[in-house]
Amino acid sequence: MSDLVDLLREGLPEAAVVVDPDVTAAYRQDMAGFCESGAPAVLVFPDTVEQVRHVLRSATALRVPVVPQGARTGLSGGANAVDGCILLSLVRMNRILEIDPVNRIAVVEPGVVNAELSRAAGAHGLTYPPDPSSWESCTIGGNIGTASGGLCCVKYGTTSEYVLGLDVVLADGELLRTGRRTAKGVAGYDLTRLLVGSEGTLGVVVGATLALRPTPPPQLALAAEFPSTEAACAAVCAVMEAGYTPSLMELMDTVSVRAVNALAQMGLPDSTAALLLIAFDTLDPVADLAAAGEICTAHGATEVVPAADSAESELLLQARRLSLTAMDRLGTTMVDDVAVPRSALAAMISGVAEIAERFDLTIGVVAHAGDGNTHPVVVFDADDPDETARARESFDAIMALGLDLGGTITGEHGVGLLKRDWLARELGPVGLELQRRVKAAFDPLGLLNPGKVL
Amino acid sequence: MSDLVDLLREGLPEAAVVVDPDVTAAYRQDMAGFCESGAPAVLVFPDTVEQVRHVLRSATALRVPVVPQGARTGLSGGANAVDGCILLSLVRMNRILEIDPVNRIAVVEPGVVNAELSRAAGAHGLTYPPDPSSWESCTIGGNIGTASGGLCCVKYGTTSEYVLGLDVVLADGELLRTGRRTAKGVAGYDLTRLLVGSEGTLGVVVGATLALRPTPPPQLALAAEFPSTEAACAAVCAVMEAGYTPSLMELMDTVSVRAVNALAQMGLPDSTAALLLIAFDTLDPVADLAAAGEICTAHGATEVVPAADSAESELLLQARRLSLTAMDRLGTTMVDDVAVPRSALAAMISGVAEIAERFDLTIGVVAHAGDGNTHPVVVFDADDPDETARARESFDAIMALGLDLGGTITGEHGVGLLKRDWLARELGPVGLELQRRVKAAFDPLGLLNPGKVL
Repeated sequence: MSDLVDLLREGLPEAAVVVDPDVTAAYRQDMAGFCESGAPAVLVFPDTVEQVRHVLRSATALRVPVVPQGARTGLSGGANAVDGCILLSLVRMNRILEIDPVNRIAVVEPGVVNAELSRAAGAHGLTYPPDPSSWESCTIGGNIGTASGGLCCVKYGTTSEYVLGLDVVLADGELLRTGRRTAKGVAGYDLTRLLVGSEGTLGVVVGATLALRPTPPPQLALAAEFPSTEAACAAVCAVMEAGYTPSLMELMDTVSVRAVNALAQMGLPDSTAALLLIAFDTLDPVADLAAAGEICTAHGATEVVPAADSAESELLLQARRLSLTAMDRLGTTMVDDVAVPRSALAAMISGVAEIAERFDLTIGVVAHAGDGNTHPVVVFDADDPDETARARESFDAIMALGLDLGGTITGEHGVGLLKRDWLARELGPVGLELQRRVKAAFDPLGLLNPGKVL
Repeated sequence: MSDLVDLLREGLPEAAVVVDPDVTAAYRQDMAGFCESGAPAVLVFPDTVEQVRHVLRSATALRVPVVPQGARTGLSGGANAVDGCILLSLVRMNRILEIDPVNRIAVVEPGVVNAELSRAAGAHGLTYPPDPSSWESCTIGGNIGTASGGLCCVKYGTTSEYVLGLDVVLADGELLRTGRRTAKGVAGYDLTRLLVGSEGTLGVVVGATLALRPTPPPQLALAAEFPSTEAACAAVCAVMEAGYTPSLMELMDTVSVRAVNALAQMGLPDSTAALLLIAFDTLDPVADLAAAGEICTAHGATEVVPAADSAESELLLQARRLSLTAMDRLGTTMVDDVAVPRSALAAMISGVAEIAERFDLTIGVVAHAGDGNTHPVVVFDADDPDETARARESFDAIMALGLDLGGTITGEHGVGLLKRDWLARELGPVGLELQRRVKAAFDPLGLLNPGKVL
């Protein structure tokens, strides 16, 4: 270990190499539950590409595993330490190097916080759409690692759609540049998109060229209360089938509605079986909301409340934004992330309710309904071993249900440690074998974030 | 060769295995110039996935190279035969298996023609945006192979944005399924997007799940004449910087304008140095066109002609659609495909004019201006060896210019055979080495479309 620290200090400032176990322990894990973490050998905070290369060269020379980290807001254990590893925090590489309004691109370091980029782009009339819930703290490097989504994806897609090019330090310290600054380009294999979502297992992102978009008009939202989740999901499908593309379409089940009511008294009737939030950022959001509201009513909504302006819209969306905090009050929570085809959303949510009953647990569901991306939140008492075991089992049952419905074990949080055992079930043996060969092509010694994803 | 044909016939219908050299010779190449092609051993037309697997298993057993083909409308030699290969035509696998309006997806076989999918989607109020110029004949499999673009990309992106999942037969005949039917998903590495644009060198696409979009309103276009390409390019940048996103923004230089005039008498003044076509498919295209027209005038446009309706718009766009045909009348043509950042478009086009002068050639430029994607069309006399040599050299000079301006050697046509020598210049040694390792991970024996891309 001392050899490693000595070697790291040859290329890093004194203060950038941290061995104090009290400090390194604080960086051991991200925000996922049910995931173990090991004891890191050292925590480093490089602030240049050259320093990152030195870290990787050192790791390769001494065969030490490297775990890259951003803000550690991840929900799958992808940033958790393994024993004896170098924790490589990119948070000090946090400069926005360029915002170019003509070409609509931004060039950033990986530690830039998502919200800071959004604000900087906003000053040019531009926006960086991907908006994970943690956007005020999560980093662009972390977003790239997990191909993060958010509320806007139903209209604007995920991080994958916005990464044009990457600077990546490979396991051996070589610097790879992928992609381009141009709107289009097909020279060679699309390694950029292969790296997006690879959770730090193929290389360490040290720079990114991102696409920006013109800022859309402010969105206007409605809230619709439904007597059943089936009715709400039918409305979701009907809105999409009618050709509308909302900028947001979120669903909360009765468990999450009641949890929010208990926390914040938002005036939602406890009898609400499902609350659907729909927003448009079109040129005529009033007309689009009216049409969507009519579709909700036709599908049984008992009340439809359209906002009069964007301030009122934000109030309506508060219920959704508070839902995870509200469920945290009920006990220890475990957030799942299963996406199914939109048409299977009702079956997914009712299946989760059955799973909750079967395992005698509280499970609330919030969903990016327009994308079919559900976040079942399992609530349990972490001091009760039996309930904890049932929570873990219910989590697996939820993933199995998602696969049975033609879905995926993870819509936007990533595989990390949490879902590693499940990846093979989704990919099958041919897919898994090929993924392993791709990993070996990038990281033949297996030093980059070992034990994650594959 | 006889062993090969015997083996192929064990798993393919008699009529699906063609050895008549007159027939196989007709399938030797795509539409690229300057690209050699070899003599195929056999041409096969499988119509099931199982038959394709048999072809690949046979190829691996006998170590015979395989060249996949769609409609052979490609412009980089990516579908050209190599000596002794199996030409694997996917055109008989041309069924649209499913169009699902709720989930906005289509499931297709690779031989489906782009326009047929567009029409089938249209019947459900949906559209498949990627629209290469060859859309009436090119196949979805070919589009996936080259990550095809088209006129709509400035607003709607390329094929890469629309492929959710793939069924792929690997070199050894194994069937790989990548991706998903869901809107989002991050389970494992994004092999789907790695395969899009891989030009048949990593696997053979036998099925695709594609994202569809609601059909937008009909687009309304304007034509603006400029006294210089610099002025037209400045207008392009100003329109984008002002936050507009046209559904089409195409530029023709004076050479292409005159060629079209000579062919079709479209009433364009021969004095036009640059013609800019801008279209919007927004809710209020008249207002957007008026604003874009004012920007054109402010940047020196001598005439701005907005269409009154979509029929008039199509008439205006005819000039652009006829441009390659018109230049074909001037001699043998060679279409290049260099994309630069939008802000470098003026420098790119004036640089091409200098190259034309230096090599004493006619080179017309049409460009997907909104994307910075230029198609310089080199016109030469193929019976004149000296002029042919100069044409080849000018082609290289154009790629070098694109790279100097921060661009890419290919925006949408692919590397194929044509630009293989140039790929290393764009990717550099680290990128090239990694691309080769990815190729080896998929195709360790090097049997899939050898000599293409890498």
